[in-house]
Amino acid sequence: MTKQSTFQALSDGTRRQILRYLKERDMTAGEIAEKFASSKPTISHHLSILKQADLISDQRSGQSIMYSLNTSVFEEILEWIMEFLEKKPDGPTDRKA
Amino acid sequence: MTKQSTFQALSDGTRRQILRYLKERDMTAGEIAEKFASSKPTISHHLSILKQADLISDQRSGQSIMYSLNTSVFEEILEWIMEFLEKKPDGPTDRKA
Repeated sequence: MTKQSTFQALSDGTRRQILRYLKERDMTAGEIAEKFASSKPTISHHLSILKQADLISDQRSGQSIMYSLNTSVFEEILEWIMEFLEKKPDGPTDRKA
Repeated sequence: MTKQSTFQALSDGTRRQILRYLKERDMTAGEIAEKFASSKPTISHHLSILKQADLISDQRSGQSIMYSLNTSVFEEILEWIMEFLEKKPDGPTDRKA
């Protein structure tokens, strides 16, 4: 993944909602599409952006493809964000220990 | 802030680099611009996107405007990311405690 593709993938509300659904359980593209008013091709496009950003994985399960959350990229973003919350080497800070 | 504006702001490499500089110390737009090959107007545009996303704040200091990191939005993203790393209610998981 690149930070660019990750943050771009996360910048869309539909895609963030898909991630929330997949947090609850693995789902097929059809099950995900049913949750939205958007067309299936639109949802497929969102899924492919999330997959390119490695935020989700897909796996064939019989006739259908199951999508699941890929937590490792969330861990990478978490680490990246944490760096900014470490105390500054000097200068004023509004954060208390 | 909205998640949309935050993630859009973070999806650009120059903007992420600006944030890393501001993590070290507060800087003026001129000091920031000197660090990049891009033109000053380009850097100003990036600064305004970061400001709109509340990732940075500006404050007048004499003749110039000082930019500083606004850690509270980083904390919000951290919380948002953490939700996805909590254990799923059921189903398979590849995360060990």
